[in-house]
Amino acid sequence: MIYVDEKIKNTYRIPQPEGRGKFIRLDQNENPDGIPKWLFDKVIDKITPEFLAIYPEETRLTEKFAKKIGLNLENVTLTDGSVVGMGYVIKVFGEDKKTLLCVTPSFGMYKVYAEMVGMQAKLLNYEQDFSFDIEKIINSIDDNTGIVVLVNPNMPIGNTYDQKDIERIVITAEKRGALVIIDEAYHYFYNDTSLELVKKYDNVVILRTFSKMFSIPALRMGAIISNSDVIRYINNYKPHYTVNSIALLFGEAIIDNYELVLTDLKKDYEEGKNYIYKELKDNNYDYIPSAGCFVCIKPKYKSSEEITKLLKENGILILCGSGDLTGYLRLTIAHKKYMELFMDCLKRIDVGNYNE
Amino acid sequence: MIYVDEKIKNTYRIPQPEGRGKFIRLDQNENPDGIPKWLFDKVIDKITPEFLAIYPEETRLTEKFAKKIGLNLENVTLTDGSVVGMGYVIKVFGEDKKTLLCVTPSFGMYKVYAEMVGMQAKLLNYEQDFSFDIEKIINSIDDNTGIVVLVNPNMPIGNTYDQKDIERIVITAEKRGALVIIDEAYHYFYNDTSLELVKKYDNVVILRTFSKMFSIPALRMGAIISNSDVIRYINNYKPHYTVNSIALLFGEAIIDNYELVLTDLKKDYEEGKNYIYKELKDNNYDYIPSAGCFVCIKPKYKSSEEITKLLKENGILILCGSGDLTGYLRLTIAHKKYMELFMDCLKRIDVGNYNE
Repeated sequence: MIYVDEKIKNTYRIPQPEGRGKFIRLDQNENPDGIPKWLFDKVIDKITPEFLAIYPEETRLTEKFAKKIGLNLENVTLTDGSVVGMGYVIKVFGEDKKTLLCVTPSFGMYKVYAEMVGMQAKLLNYEQDFSFDIEKIINSIDDNTGIVVLVNPNMPIGNTYDQKDIERIVITAEKRGALVIIDEAYHYFYNDTSLELVKKYDNVVILRTFSKMFSIPALRMGAIISNSDVIRYINNYKPHYTVNSIALLFGEAIIDNYELVLTDLKKDYEEGKNYIYKELKDNNYDYIPSAGCFVCIKPKYKSSEEITKLLKENGILILCGSGDLTGYLRLTIAHKKYMELFMDCLKRIDVGNYNE
Repeated sequence: MIYVDEKIKNTYRIPQPEGRGKFIRLDQNENPDGIPKWLFDKVIDKITPEFLAIYPEETRLTEKFAKKIGLNLENVTLTDGSVVGMGYVIKVFGEDKKTLLCVTPSFGMYKVYAEMVGMQAKLLNYEQDFSFDIEKIINSIDDNTGIVVLVNPNMPIGNTYDQKDIERIVITAEKRGALVIIDEAYHYFYNDTSLELVKKYDNVVILRTFSKMFSIPALRMGAIISNSDVIRYINNYKPHYTVNSIALLFGEAIIDNYELVLTDLKKDYEEGKNYIYKELKDNNYDYIPSAGCFVCIKPKYKSSEEITKLLKENGILILCGSGDLTGYLRLTIAHKKYMELFMDCLKRIDVGNYNE
C-alpha cells in the first residue's frame, strides 16, 4: 500500500456545479455579462496561436497591479484564482495543531485548507441578528491561534468589518504570533480596504480576485498582497507558470483602463442593486442588506428549496441557503435586466397554493 | 513573529526567464508557431465577455481525454500545468523523511517539491555515456523510498526508459510501498507510453501536458492519470476552479480533432528534427540523439556560454548546459524554418578567433 496523507485522504470536498452556461447565473456571484465589450475588443486580437505557445510572464502585471494599489512588486504575487491563493497562505503559514479562526457562515475553503495542514478550524457563529460580535472574535484569539480569517465583506451574508475593528484584531493577533488573512474578494462592490494595514503590520495578508467585480472568473486570477517577506515565502512555495497568459492579458487591460472599466462595471451593478432593493422592499420581502454583490432573501410563501427549484425551471440559477441561512435564497446582484427577470419570476412563483 | 514552514522558508527557486516574446524561442521546448491556424480558428470565436464570466467546468474535457487514452473519468484529473500536477502528487503521497528517487539531470521541480514535504531527494547520476543504469535505479529502491520519478523521455538529455524496465521498477517499488511517477511530458514526440501500467498496478501515476506537442503552454494545462483511488485523493487536495476555461476550450478542440492536430504538429516537428540531425552530422557537430523535442549539441570552437550569448544577440534563445551538460547547448527542435535560422547562425558564430 502506498502512503497517503491521512488529512487529505479524508477531506470532504463539495462538488462544484456544472452545466451552468445555458442558465441566467445568479448563484455564484459572477457578473453574467462579463467585462465591457470595448475592453474585450482591445484584448482579443492579441490572442494568436503564437501567443498561446509562450510560457506566461507575470512580472509586468504584478508590478502594474502593485502600483495601482500603492504598493510595490515585492508586495504582490498573482495566483490562479483567489481560492488557490488562500491555499498557499495556509500551507506556508499554517502550523500543525494550531487553530484557524473564522466566523461562520463564510467561505468554506478556509476550513478545508486549515484541516489539510493539521490545523483546527474554530468557527464563531454569527449573532441572531446576522451581525458579528467583534469582542467575541478578539477574545477568541489566544496563544493557540495560528491564523485569523476576515472575509470583508463576508459572504454569504454581506456584512462588513469596520477598519478600526480589523486593526484591533490585527494587533491582538500580532501579540500571539498569529497571521490575519483579510479576504477582499468583494472589494470594489464595497470601497473600503485594509491595504494600509499591510504597511503597518507584519502579520497581514490581503486577498483580491479578478473573478467578482472584474468579471473574468473563467480565466482564474487572484492576488496575494502582503509585506515582502510573506510574499517571498509564498513565491518559494508557488509553482512557476500558474497564472495563464490570457488572464494576464485581460488583467493588464483592466489595470491599464482601471477607472473606465470600474465606472462601467459599477454603473451596471449599482443600477441592479438599487432596483432589487427597492423591489424587495416594495413587495414586502424580508432580506439582509449586503455590502457584496449578493443579497439573502426570505421567500414569503414557498420554501427556499421550492423557489430555487422553480427558478431553475425558469432558467434562473440562485443559491438555496443552508445552515444559518436556512429558509433564505442567496441572489447575485447583477445588471438590472437580470434583476427584473428574477423579480418577475419570484413574484409569479412565490405565491400561496390557491388550489388547497 | 508569525510561523513559517521552515522547509518552505529556505526553498530556493530558480527565477523563470521573461521578455521572451520578441525572440525565436528554442530554449524552453515550446513550439514557437503554436497550434495549427485551422484549429485556432475553430475555437477563438467562442471566447466572448460572457464566456469569460462563467467559472470553469472541467468534467467534459476530463472525460473526453480519459476516453481518448482508453481510460475513464475517474482515472484523470486536469491541472493548471504539469508542474502543478506533480506538486499535487508529491504533496498528497510524499511522506516526511522518506526519499524521492530520480536520475539527474532531470526536471528540477521534483527535488524542490520533495524537500517541501520533508522528503530527501536521492538523485542518481547518469553514466558517462549519458545512459541510465536501470539496475542502479532498481537497487536504489529500498524501504525508505517513498516516490520514484521516471521522466520518459527524460529531459534535458532525451533518452528513454524501456517499458519492460519501467515495469520492473514499478514492481520493485510496489513491494516497498513506493509510488512511481512516470512523467510523459514529451509523449507524442515519443509514441511509447506506460498507460497500460496504470491498469495493472496501484502505485503508478502518469503525467501529461498540453504545453509541449499540443503547443498551448500559455494556457497551462496538464493531466494526472492513475487509478481511481489516487485520483480521488488528488481531487480531495486540488483546489476547485484551477484550470481556466480557455485552456479547457482549446484542450477540447485538440481532443475532438486529435488525429488531424497530431498529424499537422508531428509533420512540422519531424521535418525540423530530420533537418537538424542531418545538418549537425554533416557539419561534424557532436550531439546527443534524443526522443524528446530537444537536442544537446557541443559547440566546436567557442564555449556554450559564448554561443548562447551570441545566438541571443542574433534573436535566438537556446539553453546553455550546466552540471553534467556543461559544454553543451540545448536546442528545442521545432519547424524546419527555425532549425535553419539556428543552424545558419551557429555556423556563422561557432568559428575560431581568426584575429588571434
